[in-house]
Amino acid sequence: MSQRRPRHHLNLESGRIDMSHGSGGRAMAQLIDELFRHHLDNRYLRQGDDHASFEVGAGRLAMSTDGHVISPLFFPGGDIGSLAIHGTVNDVAMAGAMPHYLSAGFILEEGLPLADLQRIVISMAEAATAAGVAVITGDTKVVERGKGDGIFITTTGVGTIPDGVAISGRNARPGDRVIVSGTMGDHGVAILACRNGLQLQSTILSDSAPLHRMVAAMVAVAPNIHSLRDPTRGGLATTLNELAQQSQVGIRLEESAIPVREEVSAVCELLGLDPLYSANEGKLICICDPADAEPLVATMRRQPYGEDAAVIGEVVADPHHFVQLRTRFGGSRIVDWLVGEQLPRIC
Amino acid sequence: MSQRRPRHHLNLESGRIDMSHGSGGRAMAQLIDELFRHHLDNRYLRQGDDHASFEVGAGRLAMSTDGHVISPLFFPGGDIGSLAIHGTVNDVAMAGAMPHYLSAGFILEEGLPLADLQRIVISMAEAATAAGVAVITGDTKVVERGKGDGIFITTTGVGTIPDGVAISGRNARPGDRVIVSGTMGDHGVAILACRNGLQLQSTILSDSAPLHRMVAAMVAVAPNIHSLRDPTRGGLATTLNELAQQSQVGIRLEESAIPVREEVSAVCELLGLDPLYSANEGKLICICDPADAEPLVATMRRQPYGEDAAVIGEVVADPHHFVQLRTRFGGSRIVDWLVGEQLPRIC
Repeated sequence: MSQRRPRHHLNLESGRIDMSHGSGGRAMAQLIDELFRHHLDNRYLRQGDDHASFEVGAGRLAMSTDGHVISPLFFPGGDIGSLAIHGTVNDVAMAGAMPHYLSAGFILEEGLPLADLQRIVISMAEAATAAGVAVITGDTKVVERGKGDGIFITTTGVGTIPDGVAISGRNARPGDRVIVSGTMGDHGVAILACRNGLQLQSTILSDSAPLHRMVAAMVAVAPNIHSLRDPTRGGLATTLNELAQQSQVGIRLEESAIPVREEVSAVCELLGLDPLYSANEGKLICICDPADAEPLVATMRRQPYGEDAAVIGEVVADPHHFVQLRTRFGGSRIVDWLVGEQLPRIC
Repeated sequence: MSQRRPRHHLNLESGRIDMSHGSGGRAMAQLIDELFRHHLDNRYLRQGDDHASFEVGAGRLAMSTDGHVISPLFFPGGDIGSLAIHGTVNDVAMAGAMPHYLSAGFILEEGLPLADLQRIVISMAEAATAAGVAVITGDTKVVERGKGDGIFITTTGVGTIPDGVAISGRNARPGDRVIVSGTMGDHGVAILACRNGLQLQSTILSDSAPLHRMVAAMVAVAPNIHSLRDPTRGGLATTLNELAQQSQVGIRLEESAIPVREEVSAVCELLGLDPLYSANEGKLICICDPADAEPLVATMRRQPYGEDAAVIGEVVADPHHFVQLRTRFGGSRIVDWLVGEQLPRIC
């Protein structure tokens, strides 16, 4: 028997990923058993096949995928593992859906310390457990040193959409209210500050968080929510431009109503950035009937990640599909799409 | 209006991916519209949200994910685009399921020629159409030059499992027959020959192909199939060891019954390789009741990718879970797991 099993466990203190961990052979089987299955354990992974199977009732499902290439891998408020869970949980939730099942595809670079991989997998497991989702199937590839960057994680999620809910970026209508669930720009600024080694009085944390329970509460109060989207890459400004384009409407914002943390504003001023273009990983934009706005904001404020929810503007008829901002000084300016690259590899 | 839209279309002749294509801003929106949505077009992608939604009936679904990091990107018999469709279609099919919906996550390296990306996306679209599946949602990230390798594609598939079908690597029983759907080792040897610039009289092509229709025909004839698995990385030898381990059985093979192309044998001999450890991307292993073996082989042989289907051995009781081979010369040897790395980045 001894020849059939690796003699030693993975060396999680000083071991590193090598090409054999992607071979399909014994080293890969050991990595999957001792790291991935061990920490992410659930009855689907225990099926041990290259797929997982699960029961569904008749209805609508939502599916979404997100590749995660964030640099650095560990940052204030999270890491690539927790982010890979939250990112896909949130994309599924933006359908008004309850995410249940996730897959995870890992692309590892030769030389990645196993200790880092373990820390990331444990973080994924904790984030999945906290969110009530299961990583039910996965895949591991290894690329040569210099052909990757430590680890990339692509997660895909599937969730169930409650009957009668039909949320899409296409559904914004003139007169609708625009709500955000909290402060803008935290994630992008946290990553930037961390990359630049900025010494800040108070560390700015990424807002990375799962929003699906808040969405479930929102949908229960207002099943007729028109649009939901999480303002990740490109920030609030770009995401609202996408929604305006998709629904063929314009949007008017009140600058004074948009919640931004003081520290985030300060760092943005220092570095010449705009918090409206800075990424969020635990915030959502909701567009709804005016009558639903107040009950929704009240509901969001009672949720863990919605304390700072606020109405920030409204949808208008506009053949140009402009997003316009009424500034604190009473002026008005067009908030355009992000052009170029503000912050590479932010998620 | 002119300021709201890119003035020029993507330069598909000489343009290259730059960091702005991963920014979440306008350049990314253009890339998605003009390349991904344009070629992969379907009513789900046209929803234009970060997720896609679809109707399902009550029952069991199978889900599987696969990252594709193959090098080179283009090879005899396919490319990373067609492979990314076939790989996931097949993993879902190995549940006895009919795949319907795929997601695709792209990780692009700065500098990738847009012409290469277009060729890959067109190949994906053609493979998806031929397989009758739709890529319904996706994601694009860009990493700096030297932090990736052209393009990595992670696909995830969802499919429906017919009522009464319960196929798993756990279900092999002593007395069962072991069937393969065709010649072993073609994909691995094609990639190796291509990498080494071997001048062969006849080019060896990858066997990359979608197997779900053959599986549907097989399940219709024998709903009680015990195990299905596609022998990709690690080849037939490693995959049978996985199955033996998972089902806690042994396996005995007849070397003379295992189909291998003459050219593949020749290249393997030249390079000191074993075709039983060489990857396949259009072949499956089926383990079934002895009574189902002949009808299944007959069914497979009538299918486009099953002409060379054959019974190659049987499942035996063995507390060591060994895979053993009776050689052409009447001897017997143990066929162990792949140890180390025969061929990196084969899929």
